[in-house]
Amino acid sequence: MTHQDAHTPASGSEETGVDQAPSGPASEDTALSGGATGGRAIGWHKGYIEGSRPDLRVPVRQVHLTNGEDVTLYDTSGPYTDPTVDTDVRRGLAPLRENWIIGRGDTEEYAGRPPRPEDDGLKHTSPRGGLLGGGATDLRGLDAVFPGRPRQPRRGRTDRAVTQLAYARRGEITPEMEYVAIRESVAPEVVREEIAAGRAVLPANINHPETEPMIIGKRFLVKVNANIGNSAVTSSIEEEVEKMTWATRWGADTVMDLSTGRNIHTTREWVLRNSPVPIGTVPLYQALEKVDGKAEELTWEIYKDTVIEQAEQGVDYMTVHAGVLLRYVPLTARRKTGIVSRGGSIMAAWCLAHHKESFLYENFDELCEILAAYDVTYSLGDGLRPGSIADANDEAQFAELRTLGELNSIAKSHHVQTMIEGPGHVPMHKIKENIDLQQEICEEAPFYTLGPLTTDVAPAYDHITSGIGAAMIAWWGTAMLCYVTPKEHLGLPDRDDVKTGVITYKIAAHAADLAKGHPGAQQWDDALSDARFEFRWEDQFNLALDPDTAREYHDETLPAEPAKTAHFCSMCGPKFCSMKISQDIRRKHGGEMAGGADGTGTPAEEIEAGMAEKSKEFAAAGNRVYLPLAD
Amino acid sequence: MTHQDAHTPASGSEETGVDQAPSGPASEDTALSGGATGGRAIGWHKGYIEGSRPDLRVPVRQVHLTNGEDVTLYDTSGPYTDPTVDTDVRRGLAPLRENWIIGRGDTEEYAGRPPRPEDDGLKHTSPRGGLLGGGATDLRGLDAVFPGRPRQPRRGRTDRAVTQLAYARRGEITPEMEYVAIRESVAPEVVREEIAAGRAVLPANINHPETEPMIIGKRFLVKVNANIGNSAVTSSIEEEVEKMTWATRWGADTVMDLSTGRNIHTTREWVLRNSPVPIGTVPLYQALEKVDGKAEELTWEIYKDTVIEQAEQGVDYMTVHAGVLLRYVPLTARRKTGIVSRGGSIMAAWCLAHHKESFLYENFDELCEILAAYDVTYSLGDGLRPGSIADANDEAQFAELRTLGELNSIAKSHHVQTMIEGPGHVPMHKIKENIDLQQEICEEAPFYTLGPLTTDVAPAYDHITSGIGAAMIAWWGTAMLCYVTPKEHLGLPDRDDVKTGVITYKIAAHAADLAKGHPGAQQWDDALSDARFEFRWEDQFNLALDPDTAREYHDETLPAEPAKTAHFCSMCGPKFCSMKISQDIRRKHGGEMAGGADGTGTPAEEIEAGMAEKSKEFAAAGNRVYLPLAD
Repeated sequence: MTHQDAHTPASGSEETGVDQAPSGPASEDTALSGGATGGRAIGWHKGYIEGSRPDLRVPVRQVHLTNGEDVTLYDTSGPYTDPTVDTDVRRGLAPLRENWIIGRGDTEEYAGRPPRPEDDGLKHTSPRGGLLGGGATDLRGLDAVFPGRPRQPRRGRTDRAVTQLAYARRGEITPEMEYVAIRESVAPEVVREEIAAGRAVLPANINHPETEPMIIGKRFLVKVNANIGNSAVTSSIEEEVEKMTWATRWGADTVMDLSTGRNIHTTREWVLRNSPVPIGTVPLYQALEKVDGKAEELTWEIYKDTVIEQAEQGVDYMTVHAGVLLRYVPLTARRKTGIVSRGGSIMAAWCLAHHKESFLYENFDELCEILAAYDVTYSLGDGLRPGSIADANDEAQFAELRTLGELNSIAKSHHVQTMIEGPGHVPMHKIKENIDLQQEICEEAPFYTLGPLTTDVAPAYDHITSGIGAAMIAWWGTAMLCYVTPKEHLGLPDRDDVKTGVITYKIAAHAADLAKGHPGAQQWDDALSDARFEFRWEDQFNLALDPDTAREYHDETLPAEPAKTAHFCSMCGPKFCSMKISQDIRRKHGGEMAGGADGTGTPAEEIEAGMAEKSKEFAAAGNRVYLPLAD
Repeated sequence: MTHQDAHTPASGSEETGVDQAPSGPASEDTALSGGATGGRAIGWHKGYIEGSRPDLRVPVRQVHLTNGEDVTLYDTSGPYTDPTVDTDVRRGLAPLRENWIIGRGDTEEYAGRPPRPEDDGLKHTSPRGGLLGGGATDLRGLDAVFPGRPRQPRRGRTDRAVTQLAYARRGEITPEMEYVAIRESVAPEVVREEIAAGRAVLPANINHPETEPMIIGKRFLVKVNANIGNSAVTSSIEEEVEKMTWATRWGADTVMDLSTGRNIHTTREWVLRNSPVPIGTVPLYQALEKVDGKAEELTWEIYKDTVIEQAEQGVDYMTVHAGVLLRYVPLTARRKTGIVSRGGSIMAAWCLAHHKESFLYENFDELCEILAAYDVTYSLGDGLRPGSIADANDEAQFAELRTLGELNSIAKSHHVQTMIEGPGHVPMHKIKENIDLQQEICEEAPFYTLGPLTTDVAPAYDHITSGIGAAMIAWWGTAMLCYVTPKEHLGLPDRDDVKTGVITYKIAAHAADLAKGHPGAQQWDDALSDARFEFRWEDQFNLALDPDTAREYHDETLPAEPAKTAHFCSMCGPKFCSMKISQDIRRKHGGEMAGGADGTGTPAEEIEAGMAEKSKEFAAAGNRVYLPLAD
């Protein structure tokens, strides 16, 4: 089998109804090329699986193997990896869901909340009427206003919720549901059922028509979220948009924009208009900027206004720390690391400052009505999650979880899709209790966990300390994993950190898919293992989660092109390659390996004679276990 | 608390009987300095805990915190990190156990097996008498002969085994046992009992007196092995010695020298004479070199001679693939990746070539007698371990495990210390069966696993795919983890890969120690979490598994020196730092946090009045949740 064969579309792919994006020179622009060099075309293409209508085309990554087979993989990278689509971050992505949303006839465009300078932290009026904060003359943010097509926000026309949960409960299979059914290789009815039961969410704000529908629920593939976001300390709009596309390129299923500095509104606009995946936020961060960082000056009105601002922009899910109640704050007093959630600590400070119950908790019904009008999904935040091994599974954490269970029921009564956030820092033996309790208390609503980190002693390696916990909790039922990068606890992640975080979490998620026995998950491993055993190096690279790095590492030891077809691995060298020896054995002893020679009840003397015969055959064949190799 | 305080030995350290290596300029030579720069002394020192005799001094890593406290950590780095010891790789390390070994009076020096050119693969006589192989004129290896002090090998004087197992069974607590008891913070009798029961091994060849005793057993801290070794394809003696010291510096508890190329004997000599940790090998690799890579030409005599050669040099444990029986080979026929163990595939090839039972299995009793005379520990190899997710826990694997159980009993009858090797590639839901079955079949002999890798799809990240499985299987009882580097399946690990592999596996091991509730394990996490909550950045760095990288990542975002005392984290910036807010809350609401205000049965109106009062107090105190900061 030659390399040229890798680019002949296998007939199998047509049978499965996968469209091929044209191959050839254009595809070499693709970033995930797996190392296209020297005029050799790449080993995979963007493909599409068509649904019941022409505007329903589900993207897939189609890997063409050198043995003529195709492997179809889930693809989160959006139109950026389709050489036939002309993308431009200044224009934004095409609104692929727009007609589906309009077609439902239950929403309307409206003027919307006018943008204000304080949305970007440029200046603002405090709740007491005075001008607060510096930077009023800093116009850098205005220069960056998103230049794409003008749009008006859209909201639910009637009192009826326009959420996927509401549709699912009414028995409707929306195009979004059909889309994810194709993506997950399940029947659309399964998707509808899981959403209707609240066991899965399909985060898809009607103001984010650019998003490619995806589903989060334990019945489906485990998903990965990547956090991005500038801060007062560092980073820019361009960097954040770049991080978003970069994260989805490596497999991020959703992205949370956790920006807290200047240009918070504008950054989010750029990210949303260019994002093929659902975008999540923590509205409290922006609200706090509007009161110049003074938690006690936060009000329900400022918060609500911020939520509407973000819902109109198209944020698909929002973290709301409504479970941090005044009476829970003292439960953190004896903790080793207190409250480590930003939102949790802000709400705790507010509660104590006013000695009143959380305005998020008190106004939760009204908040539900707003979210229902845009199909914003709740991500009920765990503001009291443990921040150290010592604090795991304590009273504060589980008290809040019980309140999240209560809020989950209220949200569902408003037809708002809801998932629940989870910890944090948890030693391995305490992980299972987290998912079991959450599933019980929150009626199997999707669990969305940060790690958990299984030890505190490895700053700079917390993608690994947490990847361990993430894989385990996902196996036991967590639906989405929030990634942790190597910079956790130390600094803001850069491009390389984002990639490392995403890859680590894709490993955790996929390991969990395997352990859960997700149909189809093992096909990917099998394809790569076959390629490994058969020394199809190019196929190993192209099937890898990170083809570029796999190829680079291989080439460090054996850089020459022939080494990519070598029948041994550079780790051991030709004489010690177990796979090679194993293959040779199969070749030489094919008949025997398939059955006889022992355990068959054959008399001993007969076996011995057979053995001697086999031995002679082996000697006659050259007595060599190894093929001639230049070593 | 100022930085100067960090270097005043805490009085607590004297109480625990820890000697301080002199601090000051000399200690800045220490490689693990955690970033000693600008004349500032480092944050940790090599210390020693003295035992019952003056020549029994157990090394520890003593971290001096800026708050005046000390944290004592397990230390594997050997004399290299002690500035008072003058090390020289051309001379080798001091033979610290020599007097203990001689003192037992049960061993003797003897002339030993004369070294032969074929030991280094330079030329050799084939079993048929002809000269085989090239390279006879290549004398590079001879130039590298280890120049250290002349020595004769030592062996057991009588028929009695001179193994730690034999001593333990006789009720003797050796200095080695006392040493590890201090290292593990347990009573010496616990060590003796675990060894006597075969639940732990203390690998310490009497010809490797340089080794600092350590113990491998589920009752103790989980250990990590790092593989090094040149191959026919690449690398040199110098590199391998450097990799060994580098690996132990980052925490490797043992090192396996898996060299397969030229200079195999000489490389091992350099490694052994300079290694403070037990060295393991796979003698089959060198034996195969002696027959020019032709598995069918291997004989028991060549193998036995190689084992004696290595035992005389001081190899502490040897992997022996004696469980690969002829009748098991056909069980691998339908596997996706056949036999992936080098040793397993070599033995399978031999068995099939001769159609006879494995010479290792047939001569196992004699092999035991040899190992007993040097106190070489068995690591019974899992030659049929699965090499892919698809092959996990199959009949071939478990058939071999049952044979390993049988061999374990035979080894124990010869008083040979024994551990059992385990897989490999195993999806998460099939991991526990591996350790449970091994513990049952092998009478709780220590399990020593390679990962396992929990998915096949991430070449270049197999330290992570396997770190997940390693942490889990260690939690469930595996005693030692064999590391996997990012280069696994792709190439030979370099210095950076070795470090990444060791750090990843130290994380897995420590996460397991925490989950097993090992006494003392959590103190480390607690110390680091305290430092984190109190913004003691220098302490966080110095307590980290990898201080250098933690410091580097922090400095990338906030490079200025004041940022290392900043009361916020660069990830979030000052306004959003949850730990800072959490601290402020505690400061302002100390009394309340400690007890009252809710859940105490206080009447509602009284609570409300109290709340209003608290609110006034807060306003009077400035109404600020944040300390003034320059932002």
